[in-house]
Amino acid sequence: MDYKAFFESLIGTMKTDGRYRTFIEIERQAGKFPRALWHHPDGTPRQVVVWCSNDYLGMGQNDQVLSAMHQSIDRFGAGTGGTRNISGTNRQHVLLERELADLHGKEAGLLFNSGWISNLAALGVLGRVLPDCVIFSDALNHNSMIEGIRWSGAEKHIFRHNDAAHLDELMASVAPDRPKIVAFESVYSMDGDIAPISDICDVAEKYGAITYLDEVHAVGLYGSTGGGVSERDGVSDRLTLIEGTLAKSFGVMGGYVTGPDVLIDAIRSLAPSFIFSSSLCPHVAAGAQASIQYVRTHPDLRQRHQEAVRNLKALLKEADMPILESPSHILPLIIGDAHMCRQSSDMLLERHGIYVQPINYPTVSRGQERLRITATPFHTPDLAEQLVAALKDVRDRLGWGSKNKTVA
Amino acid sequence: MDYKAFFESLIGTMKTDGRYRTFIEIERQAGKFPRALWHHPDGTPRQVVVWCSNDYLGMGQNDQVLSAMHQSIDRFGAGTGGTRNISGTNRQHVLLERELADLHGKEAGLLFNSGWISNLAALGVLGRVLPDCVIFSDALNHNSMIEGIRWSGAEKHIFRHNDAAHLDELMASVAPDRPKIVAFESVYSMDGDIAPISDICDVAEKYGAITYLDEVHAVGLYGSTGGGVSERDGVSDRLTLIEGTLAKSFGVMGGYVTGPDVLIDAIRSLAPSFIFSSSLCPHVAAGAQASIQYVRTHPDLRQRHQEAVRNLKALLKEADMPILESPSHILPLIIGDAHMCRQSSDMLLERHGIYVQPINYPTVSRGQERLRITATPFHTPDLAEQLVAALKDVRDRLGWGSKNKTVA
Repeated sequence: MDYKAFFESLIGTMKTDGRYRTFIEIERQAGKFPRALWHHPDGTPRQVVVWCSNDYLGMGQNDQVLSAMHQSIDRFGAGTGGTRNISGTNRQHVLLERELADLHGKEAGLLFNSGWISNLAALGVLGRVLPDCVIFSDALNHNSMIEGIRWSGAEKHIFRHNDAAHLDELMASVAPDRPKIVAFESVYSMDGDIAPISDICDVAEKYGAITYLDEVHAVGLYGSTGGGVSERDGVSDRLTLIEGTLAKSFGVMGGYVTGPDVLIDAIRSLAPSFIFSSSLCPHVAAGAQASIQYVRTHPDLRQRHQEAVRNLKALLKEADMPILESPSHILPLIIGDAHMCRQSSDMLLERHGIYVQPINYPTVSRGQERLRITATPFHTPDLAEQLVAALKDVRDRLGWGSKNKTVA
Repeated sequence: MDYKAFFESLIGTMKTDGRYRTFIEIERQAGKFPRALWHHPDGTPRQVVVWCSNDYLGMGQNDQVLSAMHQSIDRFGAGTGGTRNISGTNRQHVLLERELADLHGKEAGLLFNSGWISNLAALGVLGRVLPDCVIFSDALNHNSMIEGIRWSGAEKHIFRHNDAAHLDELMASVAPDRPKIVAFESVYSMDGDIAPISDICDVAEKYGAITYLDEVHAVGLYGSTGGGVSERDGVSDRLTLIEGTLAKSFGVMGGYVTGPDVLIDAIRSLAPSFIFSSSLCPHVAAGAQASIQYVRTHPDLRQRHQEAVRNLKALLKEADMPILESPSHILPLIIGDAHMCRQSSDMLLERHGIYVQPINYPTVSRGQERLRITATPFHTPDLAEQLVAALKDVRDRLGWGSKNKTVA
């Protein structure tokens, strides 16, 4: 078989479909966020403003985080040289896991090299070891949860997105004595909508299920100490397990799961993706802990974040932009066509020095292609006005959004 | 269902079987490797010597690596705030990927948050998209390769460990026109034996297969520039893809795959574990690049590594220790019983301040429980003598290894 020709044709098809993704090479600049250098394919670096980062609070440039990392590198060096079981558990991992458990009011926490792995490992192990387990999964759950459920081999039922009544219906159809897990997210990344956590917990409790909540787009941002939507809604204790990330609001990298001691112990003991991975660098763990401590004690940061979002949302509406109405900080601007979505992004970058990545299929369904805009406390009102002016220019040139306006 | 009781009983069974693992909490100390602080469960820190690290060259404390990380934190901050596709591709990733491709003489490289993910993603995508693909996998391949193959859904044939003739037999039985992948490792982590790469390539070429080599325990250590056993044997160009890690000899964290442009592009474009993961911190990538550059240009480091291994091996043999004869740097000392293996490790730690993690089922098969010892250029002859004296003491107390001596 001519492998090269096969893969060339595969990539070719993706390009024709508008599904082929090109990396935008940037260079973050500590202290200047959301400004960054864009390394143009022609070799020249240009200043841009990033409007699609998940460093939602700008903690990636926070002095206390950077200083914790510097100190830890001096003290502990770079890598750990091992998996958690084989010489790779460092004090910094243990302290960070305690901090995470405490953040969510849980007994224990467990660190992973990414949020993707944390969902794969946790849902995978629970669904696999619980005999004859059934997992109820929200229709819009993230790929990592879907992969975890698939890996577990457990029977899966998909409930309509954020629909507790449908969940109830599905759960009623399954034998009462079978172990059950309800897996869902608090803030959904692409639409920015928020789950009715309390309603879903009502149903899960009725059928005696384990509840598993992914808060990756909410930790740090919601709740009085940044414990996520579950903290904001006062329902953290109704969730068996809360999963989160260190790579978005906390500005570093890695993922985690928190929950009851004995469940975390089972995941720790049985997940191959955990057992066979070298652990996070100690200074990364130390940086993440410093970040969480900062974020927990700075509600002002969350307020400034919400204000920036509110302000931008108002400006986008005023300009009749086709934004999807969302109760969270995520502002999806629907373009509805893969090629036009990419063109819009290219034009923003080339003409206006504004970076918003196009989101195309398979991340969103076809016809739902969008620019996913995120504001942070560091996006000033001036920057927001420049963004909206640039979007108007792009809209005028490409002609999208004239009909559909705000998608409520 | 009483979930807590279920998981308590599950953990209880693991404890009874000797399969339950306890983390040894250490604190690495930059500049003092292989010495570290052990945080004893009683709360007191104690100085220990680590003899089970995969920081094979001590690069985790290398000045140039740490200094590259410091500088990069000052310049770029902590995390990237995004996946590689959405604002998370930084210049440092691009430069590191070029360095890795160059190290292995390949067209392109791709970074992952761990070696585990790199195997899952690469084998997973290739096996899945190649129509009617068959994967031939060495019987002792690492869990991450097995998971990748499983994820791909491709038909799998397992050839006897390091047995090119058996591979030939299996490949002959499959239709000539089906796409094929041969997946294997260079240095096998637990036995320390080395694959006959050239013989396996002969067979793979005969049947027109893609060759996929995992060099995680060899990169940095073998070959004139640390390109692994494939470089040492002069066969790098016969391998379609070479996979490796940044978390062992290079002393940082993360994994990678290198290979032809178009195959790497397919993995990049289609692996969910890649697409949906926030990227490595830029300073981690910069630290890894500095490490590779150092290791490539310091053959003396590889020589000192080999000397330390040779010296320790001689001492172990002289003391009639039941080591598994291995051609690599990995020295497995076979205990053959899970509880005794753990006891030996505990005794080394408590009585002698020496840390060697016990390796039990399922990492090795039952009856093959072992202490897996790794020497580095920083383990002096004095430290090696102390280790052997401590092992003699433990052997005398526990009574293992009196019969089986060297397992040839």
